[in-house]
Formats: sequence, structure tokens, C-alpha cells
Amino acid sequence: MRLCTILSGGKPAVGVKLGDGKIVDLSKQMPRGPKSVVEILAGGKKLQQAVLKACAKVKPGATVSEKSAKYLTPIPAPGKILCIGLNYRKHAEETGSPIPTYPVVFTRFNNTLVPHNGKMLSTTHSKEFDWEAELTIVIGKKCRNVPKEKALSVIAGYACFNDGSIRDWQRKSGGQFTLGKNFDGTGGFGPDIVTADELPKGAAPLRISTRVNGVTMQDSNTDDLIFDVPTLVHELSKCMTLDPGDIIITGTPSGVAMARKPQPWLKPGDVCEVEIEGIGTLRNTIAQGG
Amino acid sequence: MRLCTILSGGKPAVGVKLGDGKIVDLSKQMPRGPKSVVEILAGGKKLQQAVLKACAKVKPGATVSEKSAKYLTPIPAPGKILCIGLNYRKHAEETGSPIPTYPVVFTRFNNTLVPHNGKMLSTTHSKEFDWEAELTIVIGKKCRNVPKEKALSVIAGYACFNDGSIRDWQRKSGGQFTLGKNFDGTGGFGPDIVTADELPKGAAPLRISTRVNGVTMQDSNTDDLIFDVPTLVHELSKCMTLDPGDIIITGTPSGVAMARKPQPWLKPGDVCEVEIEGIGTLRNTIAQGG
Repeated sequence: MRLCTILSGGKPAVGVKLGDGKIVDLSKQMPRGPKSVVEILAGGKKLQQAVLKACAKVKPGATVSEKSAKYLTPIPAPGKILCIGLNYRKHAEETGSPIPTYPVVFTRFNNTLVPHNGKMLSTTHSKEFDWEAELTIVIGKKCRNVPKEKALSVIAGYACFNDGSIRDWQRKSGGQFTLGKNFDGTGGFGPDIVTADELPKGAAPLRISTRVNGVTMQDSNTDDLIFDVPTLVHELSKCMTLDPGDIIITGTPSGVAMARKPQPWLKPGDVCEVEIEGIGTLRNTIAQGG
Repeated sequence: MRLCTILSGGKPAVGVKLGDGKIVDLSKQMPRGPKSVVEILAGGKKLQQAVLKACAKVKPGATVSEKSAKYLTPIPAPGKILCIGLNYRKHAEETGSPIPTYPVVFTRFNNTLVPHNGKMLSTTHSKEFDWEAELTIVIGKKCRNVPKEKALSVIAGYACFNDGSIRDWQRKSGGQFTLGKNFDGTGGFGPDIVTADELPKGAAPLRISTRVNGVTMQDSNTDDLIFDVPTLVHELSKCMTLDPGDIIITGTPSGVAMARKPQPWLKPGDVCEVEIEGIGTLRNTIAQGG
């Protein structure tokens, strides 16, 4: 099942993609049905099958084409955005960082989120705006202290993320990545969440890549994660309760701008695409931010 | 003006403290009035004076004593919790860290918050549970790129925070503080927010201290901050839009458990109090967490 959030009559509505290039607007197709993507993900297979059944015969006027849809981020305001750094060996090497022996964790706030087709924002405070293609885990069940062998059972689905980074600010705050990862409008998220049943277990192996203005810059596979999907959920849930709609952004492979000579930083007008096999393509144009 | 959030009939309600040991329950005193502390803070002097006027003659049954009140955190779910590390010289020295040349920034999630009189939670994953008394800035106006000389104009008030830290987890994640600062129920916050007009400019100088089971462990002054209140707001707002109800926790002075020999880690049953002159005393008992 493939879910998104779209603007419908000025309000967020759940979109269900049936694979024909059209999005079913659930606020029109199933007006008394679930109101958010998180509600559907947390509802499990039973609710998801009920939604699919309700979409079997599409009502007139209840669809919008993928091209004309106005996307929001698939989860408009996640309760937690957890990010993993340096989780592909070659990326750790290209940044001159040691290979982590434990997940490197930082966070994002919701002010950073940008939907599919939305504008990712550069800043007047730096030229060093970099892309980062990342597989995103979406939590479906409230949980704490999840054993590794049960970790997949709390995951509802997966999505694409572009963890846009202001590199010099990532270094200037005493080694803490937070500031460089929390500039307004730097995190692309979407277009869809694909439920876990449609992908290989733990979302690996899946090809993951980034194109900037059509040129491939990152090209790797989720099978190369140092700490895989079950390990991340297991370890993070030792510290904190995870809730439906929380997301974990699992780290980026090699090929970022920082590691290239010269460094092709993102600039206004650039088009950046993150693609993950079986999940989709997240497309963002860069615009000048504050 | 002194504001808190209390449980009233099972729901969060604004509490206004008039200084006589009683809290006016605004949901009873002013049923059509503002519904949250953030609304009052964002409403500025005009709304705050209207609320005080409405509390001038207290209705029967509209008050609760400070002793019997069931506190929630003064802002139940801040949009952003920004934390500053190593912001007192002697604390940086006691931890063996270099004196920062730029604010060291990390974050907390809302799952960490514990109200006044609530239980701060230890964890089965570590013994190293430490206290940290901190002055908290509460934002009152949406803002970005605030000049330092205007920074005080976006601050609505101040509060006490106990930035409870799991020390070994603060070190184990590649140097990122995030995990050690985000265990469930480790951050005491409250009891009140005191509006900025009742305190010295930038909330300094104010004595700040911690007592554990009645013994003073930290005793310093907000005048000793390396990066003061206006500087923090100025620098953070370069990166991100700050919104009403966002909080900035400004760092802790020396005297933490980690720097003592032997190390008197917090354990279930301990009582930890953070006091800031003119703001109040935040009291939490430690209980066993997950």
C-alpha cells in the first residue's frame, strides 16, 4: 500500500495510490474514514485492507493525478525525527570520520521538512548546502525496548528523505551535528510511505541514489548500511518510547558534495532527486532561504 | 506574571499564581479566556494584563493550593526543545571538555519531559544518571535572524529545567549527545514560567542551584553563562524559525555527579531540586524507569 498526504480544499487529506498514476483523495472517497496517514499506519493490516476495499470502486471526482497533486510531507508533523549519521562505510571514509562502532544519532525539527515538489532552502549564512539520500523508517506501533528479532513488527513502512545539510554549521557547534541539520526547509520527505509488506524485509537490498540536475551523485544500496533497520529500532528503543508516525532516517551513502573536488554545493535553481528502488522518487528544487 | 499548567477535571488548564500560595484555575475563572500558557505568552502584554484583570476577584472554587495542584509541564508539548551544552566555564572544565568558542547545541524530544513533583526516570541500561540545573528561555514571538540587540523582545519568560543526563550514553553515540539526553522521563520542567518583565534583563544575574536529598550540589549564577541569553537567541535564529512555546535550555554550571569522586549518580528514591532565584524551585523524585 502506498500512502501520501495531499492538500484537498486547503486541508491535508490522505492520498492512496493505486498504481495507475492517480491518487485517491480519501477525504472524498471515504469521508468518514481515517483522517491521517499515521492513523492508517497505526491501524495495521485490518484498517489498511478496509481502506483499500473502500478504494476499489473510485467515486467520480475523488481522484487527482500524481502530476497535479499538491503534496504535503507524508506525515505532516512527526513526533520525533531521529537521524543516523555515518551509517555507510564509504560515506564515513569520504568525510574523514572513523567507522562508527555504535549508531551516531542526531535529530531534526519539523520546521526543516519540505514535501515532494517543494522547495528545499539554501541559507544566507553558508554556501555549503549538501544533499543526502536516505531510507526512512516509519514507526507504526508504540514501543520501548524492542528485541532485535521483533523490530520489524513495529515498522509500518518506508519513505525517501533528503537530509539536506549545511556542512560548516555541522562542524562549528562543538562537534554536535544539530545546527547543520536544522536550518529551515532543508529536509525533503516523500512523496509516499510504502507499507513494509511491499518491500524486502528490513527494506534491503534496495538501490538508493541521488541525481542533481540529472547527474547521478550517489548510487548505493541499503544492503550496505553499517547498522541495519532492525538494529536501529532495537537500539533507539532502549532509550525512548517510539510512537506511530515517528521516523528514523537511516544515513546516507557516499557521493556527497563535501567529498568532491571542486565541491558542487546545491544552489538556487538546482533540482535534486532522491530515488529508492520500490519506494519512489523525491524531487525538490533548491530556492534561496533566509 | 507567573503561569503554570495544571490538571483540572482531567484536562490541562492554565494556572495563574497570584503570590498567596494559591493557583487560579483559568478554565474556571475565565472559561472563555485563553486555553494554554503559550497562547497567553504569545498574546503579549495586552492579553497578559487582561488575564490578570480577570483574576483580580477570584471566583469561589476557581483556585487550588500550590501544594495540592497536579502540575503538568508549563508547556505540555513544546514545538522545539533546544539545549546548550558546556555553557559554564567551570562545568566545561570539570567534564574535561574544551571551552566552547560557539554554542554547543543538541535537542530533546517531548517524551523526556517530567512536570514539577513528577518522577524523573532512571534506566535499566545505565547507572550514570546525572542532574543538570538549567535556566530555560521561553520564546514568545515567531522569529528568524533576530539581531542580538533585539533578542530580548522575542522572549516571553523563563523557567527551571533539570536536564537529566545518562552520561555513558552521551558518550557512546560517536560524540553526539542526543541519546544520553533523550531517555524517557529524564527532563524536569517547571513548575512555572515567569514572564520576562519580572526578572533582570536576560535573566542574569540570578543564583542557580541544585540540591539532592537536601545537599547542595550545584551553586552558581546565570551571570556566568559563556553565551548569554541574547547571544543564544541571536545565533539559534540564524538557523531556524523560532516559534511561541519553543524553549532553549541554556546549560548547566559545575557540580554534576560525573565530576565528583565517588560519583553520586541519581537513584530511585532520591529527591532532586533545581532552584533559580526569582523563578522558583523544581522538585522531582527519582523512580526506576525502563
